[in-house]
Amino acid sequence: MTNMATAQQVSLIGLGAMGTALAKALLAGGHEVTVWNRTPARADALVADGAKVAASSAEAMAAADLVILCVLDDAAVREHVEPAATGLRGSTVVNLTTTTPEQARALGTWAAARGIDVLDGGIMAVPEMVGGPDAFVLYSGAAAAFERYRSVLELFGRAEYVGEDLGAAAMYDVSILGGMYAMFAAFEQGGAMVRSTGGSAARLAELMTPFLHAMATLLATQAPGIDTPADFVQVQSDEFTAAAIDLIDRAATESGTSTELYGVLRRTLTGL
Amino acid sequence: MTNMATAQQVSLIGLGAMGTALAKALLAGGHEVTVWNRTPARADALVADGAKVAASSAEAMAAADLVILCVLDDAAVREHVEPAATGLRGSTVVNLTTTTPEQARALGTWAAARGIDVLDGGIMAVPEMVGGPDAFVLYSGAAAAFERYRSVLELFGRAEYVGEDLGAAAMYDVSILGGMYAMFAAFEQGGAMVRSTGGSAARLAELMTPFLHAMATLLATQAPGIDTPADFVQVQSDEFTAAAIDLIDRAATESGTSTELYGVLRRTLTGL
Ligand SMILES: NC(=O)c1ccc[n+]([C@@H]2O[C@H](COP(=O)([O-])OP(=O)(O)OC[C@H]3O[C@@H](n4cnc5c(N)ncnc54)[C@H](OP(=O)(O)O)[C@@H]3O)[C@@H](O)[C@H]2O)c1
Ligand SMILES: NC(=O)c1ccc[n+]([C@@H]2O[C@H](COP(=O)([O-])OP(=O)(O)OC[C@H]3O[C@@H](n4cnc5c(N)ncnc54)[C@H](OP(=O)(O)O)[C@@H]3O)[C@@H](O)[C@H]2O)c1
Repeated sequence: MTNMATAQQVSLIGLGAMGTALAKALLAGGHEVTVWNRTPARADALVADGAKVAASSAEAMAAADLVILCVLDDAAVREHVEPAATGLRGSTVVNLTTTTPEQARALGTWAAARGIDVLDGGIMAVPEMVGGPDAFVLYSGAAAAFERYRSVLELFGRAEYVGEDLGAAAMYDVSILGGMYAMFAAFEQGGAMVRSTGGSAARLAELMTPFLHAMATLLATQAPGIDTPADFVQVQSDEFTAAAIDLIDRAATESGTSTELYGVLRRTLTGL
Repeated sequence: MTNMATAQQVSLIGLGAMGTALAKALLAGGHEVTVWNRTPARADALVADGAKVAASSAEAMAAADLVILCVLDDAAVREHVEPAATGLRGSTVVNLTTTTPEQARALGTWAAARGIDVLDGGIMAVPEMVGGPDAFVLYSGAAAAFERYRSVLELFGRAEYVGEDLGAAAMYDVSILGGMYAMFAAFEQGGAMVRSTGGSAARLAELMTPFLHAMATLLATQAPGIDTPADFVQVQSDEFTAAAIDLIDRAATESGTSTELYGVLRRTLTGL
């Protein structure tokens, strides 16, 4: 068994804002890091911190058993991984590039046929947060591959394994981001509504943030309604929820702002 | 000036789940409370705690300078307040019944013509939370009336004054609830999505709750984008946000669940 306390050889492809943060975390963790970026100059600052620079993406990918990718999108991943298949045989590719679940699975299918392990990752942080206490990264794919490199991956933030299906990390990722955008959209809509009565979004934020903190804690109590609906007794009936949302809708109409958001919340939550 | 440390005469109309909790808080605060409920038996338990029971709603409303209403809806409020106008002259009516902003304003207009002060309130708590540390109540209407009875109103939970416009409390109330339902809807949708990859809503809740805690704290930083948009520099461009939401949309499509929610989030947040 590899001793995770010792330095690992790690290759990293992509030194955008996020890739650079990942590289710094790996170097700070004492690993031997080989980097490659399409625009070579972005590697310069990392060399001073101890990174080696490969002459091509294929050279970088052949230099280590753990190969991390963080480029723009799935197309950029495939563009560099496919020609490097031979050098990657026996290695583990951890793809931290944002993709859809299907794209993550397709990469896994391609890789499995070539003797390459793949983990897909979803980074739940902005680059400044990487390695800090609030950052976490979702991983899916073979549990053994995850356990093998877990201590390296923990350098980026809490490493949360979410399942064997390679699509799982991306699906959890977008589901969580969907919650964030839903909250932001309701704030945008609510801010316009309270302004119609002489209020302000600043005051709304003051009141809404602690309320949402308390309500976010209730998600765990609602999970059985989704996981095991047959056994679940709702606290609020669908009719109660629909009536409550209709009142919000009426207030939005009175404020002269859009009611589109509330209509979809009603349908999503109650089917009514 | 009235000494707020001394017991006040308070009348309370409506002893449903919420009205009963309000009555208990008033009695626990040492006030002289006269109650009335359409179904008289619901007052019985409160008599043991020291409440007086009025024979009619009009009698209850004439018994104190501070009259609190917590009945089903605006129609029930008007049904009892209108015939009691004479007894209410010079009094302050605090309406804690859920109404729309327009209904709150209309009650105020009716009351002003009859020499009655009105405050509208929105209770941000369930009955069990009343008087506890997480409960708060939004109030709007004349600031002087709010200040006069503030110490009584604080018995229900933090008293948050949101403006002179009588519609303001209801508008903040529904805007805040809209944020809660948006979060719940995204969780419902996300739970279905992660289940399609072998995941569970329970695991999603574990990951999503702390993330939403962190993101809810950002609302204050987004408020200037709504309050003073001309001076505000967005952290993420609308194009970036739209692309991020489109990716969520694609994942939802791949999971075989609805994408309706994400479409509306995209339009609300970006106008694109
Ligand atoms: N930034 C965040 O907050 C954040 C958060 C979570 C996830 N992510 C994900 O992390 C990934 C990288 O994001 P980022 O913020 O680092 O973006 P970025 O700063 O725009 O960097 C993009 C990177 O992709 C490279 N790239 C683009 N097309 C390429 C191609 N065809 N071949 C090789 N390299 C290519 C760029 O190389 P050049 O330098 O040559 O242009 C650059 O290194 C994305 O998938 C993003 O969704 C980012
Ligand atoms: N419960 C909560 O979590 C909560 C939270 C925030 C705000 N609120 C608001 O508080 C108000 C009361 O809610 P609740 O939970 O106490 O409801 P509830 O338990 O259903 O009680 C409804 C109350 O309204 C009375 N009522 C209904 N129609 C009436 C009429 N025409 N004339 C006189 N009284 C009438 C009922 O009298 P009877 O006993 O005779 O039926 C009862 O006292 C509502 O506006 C609700 O939106 C409730």
